[in-house]
Amino acid sequence: MNSEIVGMIAGALSCTTFLPQVIKTWKSKSTKDVSLNMFLIASIGTTLWLVYGILIHSISIIGTNIVVLIFSLTMLLLFFKNKDQHKQKTEE
Amino acid sequence: MNSEIVGMIAGALSCTTFLPQVIKTWKSKSTKDVSLNMFLIASIGTTLWLVYGILIHSISIIGTNIVVLIFSLTMLLLFFKNKDQHKQKTEE
Repeated sequence: MNSEIVGMIAGALSCTTFLPQVIKTWKSKSTKDVSLNMFLIASIGTTLWLVYGILIHSISIIGTNIVVLIFSLTMLLLFFKNKDQHKQKTEE
Repeated sequence: MNSEIVGMIAGALSCTTFLPQVIKTWKSKSTKDVSLNMFLIASIGTTLWLVYGILIHSISIIGTNIVVLIFSLTMLLLFFKNKDQHKQKTEE
């Protein structure tokens, strides 16, 4: 078995892991059951992977982690956006 | 800067990314806002990373992905457990 093919499929899946959550939260506008800490840890971890990729000049690590970082930061934005909306609703 | 130190911290954070979600769902018993597909993709992706790690004999990749796989599978179990409880409640 070609190990690099397995690695590439694994990498592609890792890239898209957070996408279904972004879509679900985008539609439902609710993050009650979702852990904010999960996406905080993911954002910091992915940023460090990006730094690591730049330091060792690995295009694969840089590319993968830019995609994951975009989804993680989008989730953080949705968290704060939904929090504001919730606040507005409570104030009304 | 020592790139391997950055890589090790990044790896440690990646290992624990799903842990806050497992704890939150374990306590709240609610997965309404959480994407099941996210953890399905994560479980398949992590299994492939594990296979890749075994194929290229990388202890770091094997170790990291065993930890992530345990958290992903725990989340899938919590999804199905909570679904059953929800069903029981509806039937009562």
